[in-house]
Amino acid sequence: MERILRKCQIRNRLVRECLAECLGVYILILFGCGSVAQVTTTQNQKGQYLSINLGFALGVTFGVYVSRGVSGAHLNPAVSLSLCALGRHSWVKLPFYVFFQFLGAFLGAATVALQYYEAIRWYSGGELTVSGPTATAGIFCTFPAEYLSVWAGFVDQVIGTAALLLCILALGDMGQGSIPTGIQPILVGAVVMVIGVSMGSNSGYALNPARDLGPRLLIYFIGWGEDVFKAGGGWWWVPVLAPCVGALLGTLVYEIMIEVHHDRNLKAASSCEVVSEGRSTLEMEEPDQGKPV
Amino acid sequence: MERILRKCQIRNRLVRECLAECLGVYILILFGCGSVAQVTTTQNQKGQYLSINLGFALGVTFGVYVSRGVSGAHLNPAVSLSLCALGRHSWVKLPFYVFFQFLGAFLGAATVALQYYEAIRWYSGGELTVSGPTATAGIFCTFPAEYLSVWAGFVDQVIGTAALLLCILALGDMGQGSIPTGIQPILVGAVVMVIGVSMGSNSGYALNPARDLGPRLLIYFIGWGEDVFKAGGGWWWVPVLAPCVGALLGTLVYEIMIEVHHDRNLKAASSCEVVSEGRSTLEMEEPDQGKPV
Amino acid sequence: MERILRKCQIRNRLVRECLAECLGVYILILFGCGSVAQVTTTQNQKGQYLSINLGFALGVTFGVYVSRGVSGAHLNPAVSLSLCALGRHSWVKLPFYVFFQFLGAFLGAATVALQYYEAIRWYSGGELTVSGPTATAGIFCTFPAEYLSVWAGFVDQVIGTAALLLCILALGDMGQGSIPTGIQPILVGAVVMVIGVSMGSNSGYALNPARDLGPRLLIYFIGWGEDVFKAGGGWWWVPVLAPCVGALLGTLVYEIMIEVHHDRNLKAASSCEVVSEGRSTLEMEEPDQGKPV
Amino acid sequence: MERILRKCQIRNRLVRECLAECLGVYILILFGCGSVAQVTTTQNQKGQYLSINLGFALGVTFGVYVSRGVSGAHLNPAVSLSLCALGRHSWVKLPFYVFFQFLGAFLGAATVALQYYEAIRWYSGGELTVSGPTATAGIFCTFPAEYLSVWAGFVDQVIGTAALLLCILALGDMGQGSIPTGIQPILVGAVVMVIGVSMGSNSGYALNPARDLGPRLLIYFIGWGEDVFKAGGGWWWVPVLAPCVGALLGTLVYEIMIEVHHDRNLKAASSCEVVSEGRSTLEMEEPDQGKPV
Repeated sequence: MERILRKCQIRNRLVRECLAECLGVYILILFGCGSVAQVTTTQNQKGQYLSINLGFALGVTFGVYVSRGVSGAHLNPAVSLSLCALGRHSWVKLPFYVFFQFLGAFLGAATVALQYYEAIRWYSGGELTVSGPTATAGIFCTFPAEYLSVWAGFVDQVIGTAALLLCILALGDMGQGSIPTGIQPILVGAVVMVIGVSMGSNSGYALNPARDLGPRLLIYFIGWGEDVFKAGGGWWWVPVLAPCVGALLGTLVYEIMIEVHHDRNLKAASSCEVVSEGRSTLEMEEPDQGKPV
Repeated sequence: MERILRKCQIRNRLVRECLAECLGVYILILFGCGSVAQVTTTQNQKGQYLSINLGFALGVTFGVYVSRGVSGAHLNPAVSLSLCALGRHSWVKLPFYVFFQFLGAFLGAATVALQYYEAIRWYSGGELTVSGPTATAGIFCTFPAEYLSVWAGFVDQVIGTAALLLCILALGDMGQGSIPTGIQPILVGAVVMVIGVSMGSNSGYALNPARDLGPRLLIYFIGWGEDVFKAGGGWWWVPVLAPCVGALLGTLVYEIMIEVHHDRNLKAASSCEVVSEGRSTLEMEEPDQGKPV
Repeated sequence: MERILRKCQIRNRLVRECLAECLGVYILILFGCGSVAQVTTTQNQKGQYLSINLGFALGVTFGVYVSRGVSGAHLNPAVSLSLCALGRHSWVKLPFYVFFQFLGAFLGAATVALQYYEAIRWYSGGELTVSGPTATAGIFCTFPAEYLSVWAGFVDQVIGTAALLLCILALGDMGQGSIPTGIQPILVGAVVMVIGVSMGSNSGYALNPARDLGPRLLIYFIGWGEDVFKAGGGWWWVPVLAPCVGALLGTLVYEIMIEVHHDRNLKAASSCEVVSEGRSTLEMEEPDQGKPV
Repeated sequence: MERILRKCQIRNRLVRECLAECLGVYILILFGCGSVAQVTTTQNQKGQYLSINLGFALGVTFGVYVSRGVSGAHLNPAVSLSLCALGRHSWVKLPFYVFFQFLGAFLGAATVALQYYEAIRWYSGGELTVSGPTATAGIFCTFPAEYLSVWAGFVDQVIGTAALLLCILALGDMGQGSIPTGIQPILVGAVVMVIGVSMGSNSGYALNPARDLGPRLLIYFIGWGEDVFKAGGGWWWVPVLAPCVGALLGTLVYEIMIEVHHDRNLKAASSCEVVSEGRSTLEMEEPDQGKPV
């Protein structure tokens, strides 16, 4: 088997990175949306809101483990955008990363739809609806709480994604002290956990354009129809745009309040081998080179 | 005591490995099925579905700690099969590993039956049933949800086990960056946790022929009778066969999308001492030699 | 962007430390009070008491990650006070640290109020009350249980904060064996978790003057009014004063029972580089110098 | 303060070890029984069975952190006994360790009683009872479920403590591969977590004579009276004796199935410095010497 596989080897780095991003987001959606499907279709009998938080948190963790050595595990267009703005990732690669992140989310949602096909039919009586007592669209993408105006939802997503980037940048910042390589994916998952626990009720903490729009497109095609875009007062564009704004805001705040003030010496050191190992998980531009051997 | 024990020393590696696999799966079932027993017999008063997820997750974690240095901690025939297919484990050893995995599961289930004997009698009124309001067979082995067809259940188990292998292979893949030895068992448990949280409601995430069929055989013998094989439309063979298919599928996907594309240099390095330490938990063929000193 | 940011660099260490403390407490309150807001406004539909425990625990964890390399991550005036009493932090810096800790808590609470503005209005029908069925002041600051006398509440907070310091000092004590740098913030969060799980019901485990009084001041200004200070029999001063007493008590107990008896050699070693790395998270007086490179 | 404290320094190692054991068990009971008190007096409003599991798990974790470098963190007479039987701890020290473990449990329970004094009075209407709808003795010590015979309870405690020792010995066994120092206390807590989740409903998983009898003595003296010894058919001696039997059984099983078969070379290495660091948390006979510097 090993020998046959070796013939499939791809030498182009960008292709490999895109495959890794795709698989990473696929895992994230498979576990994340799967946990919502489980809680929804069992009516809280086999899980509660906390298990949805766990599903997305560990989904992110293993999404990172599956891709960190190859693509740097962005898994989120808003994260890719921020790293580009910081000069830590190439603008040229950005559209490729983003496309494959969307593709991974789309395929992940398709797998959840396959795995929960009978459960969703049984729970909803066969009616695939976006709202109402047996709505099932919320398994795949987010909708705002009934009291939430679109602009308050925009602010909610901006704050959430800003908090995400603040924490992620701190985890990768060597000026804060190192973190054992291999532990960071757990901590990135823990950031998503705490955001879900503290900022999940307003509009479902998408924080990620790919995580939300990818699955939304899928269910638009496979039977939920136009309502997935119309619901919540045309909510769909908020979790696409607001996370990008929030990610840049969070990045700016962390840089201005903390990272920019570190000593120059440390900065210099940051480009040497030992340190780049430390920040590999989230920020290395060329992870293949800095790979720890 | 130390001196008396030393006389029992066994020098044959395969025997030692089989003992370790047996004890590892024993621990997994003891904690995993024990948590189902606790939740079932207390009618959710002392635990919920989340504590069952925790029971199996930490059961796997400590099953791995108990056996990783000796046998490589497969704890699952489907995992052993995949490692053989990848050329990382010997086909000759496979039947021995599998037999002792089943034995460990059988003995673990027997211990749970002993520990919860009075609780099960009290909860069920003495009637050991596979279905109905006070069914207790579900403590030991899995059954499909009422809405689930056998083939949908087969797909469910294939997806679940594929996800398991995808994550496990990423954890052991040096091309992703190292993970501190001694942390991996926690992460393997976390994979089982997130699968339980996101793929548990359809058919109970067996993911492991030994985990399911071993305890099923036990309760067949000690009083639950033929129904354990007849229930769910003859469900019993699904969690035996589907995990094997799923494990191979997950392995193939991970290899094709990620591992096969790593640089050759890294591959070479993977066989040297430092690296094999990193992958020891799950993949070393001869763990006794690569043992970190 | 990197170049523009570099112009904002501040060279004064105290200013940088104060910014870090401010941001650290901000994160703590953002996640901590956010989780109470989520549980309160969804009436336990999207979270339970356990998710509040998680919110504060992970809030502390990421507050520490965001500031540990710069300010040593005290995040709590009572902790700063204890470290000063132990001679591990400068008395001169104490008022600056404390002021910025309060400022961070104030700003964090303001962000939570912004993010949950519509949710709070919807839940409370627009009435911002401190007590009654739709009271929302408890989202931001603590109040005693109805059965609790002020003095029993004082004892409760003293015990809680003493336990906090006992555990934190043990985590930073090299005489206990090292802990991998980068893991300590998780453990500090775990201390807050277990205190919330075991000492949270009497009076809400503030344990921190800034965490409690900062948000209380905010909601006094933005509409909850004088009741936030009058409620609970003038409770507000207890979580300000008692944590200071408790922190000193816990420090004294740990020093007398454990740390003071370590061998001199170890103490000497404690000032060398390797060891100070180990205690950096919580105790280094000058974290910028001991920064692990 | 540092200088005054230094005068209290005790040079006798045994005294220092006993102080550490006492403080470690104190922390364990403070958090463990505290979490039961919180769940009981709030009638599951601020916690559930899972938070009790967390309280004891993290209680053990921080009990170990507080004492591991000084006494080796046994925290349990049954563990001390097993280590003596294995020749890894001195029989002469055993009675001292055990006495101070009991003392720590007694004092921890006294602190919980103080902290929850008003809550217990309010919940129980002032009646301190061992059984009935507002029984509160269960906050401090264990009682069997109504269906459980004394002998089944004995078996339950034997199995539980055997599982505890099996896992703990695996964590400290260098033949399994190393675990980063400083991580082990988390894993020891996780063992207690999974036992609570899977073996807690029959008789409350005491697993530890000091944890159970120490608090039982306290509440016998302060008002619950003779019933604490009479209840459950004279249950009190079971969690004292059965854990000792179970610990020896678990030790025997682990040694015979795993540890005794490791290569001699490894055994020799186990006594060298690097390795003893790895096993320091639980097994070193003279932790002061092997202390990692």
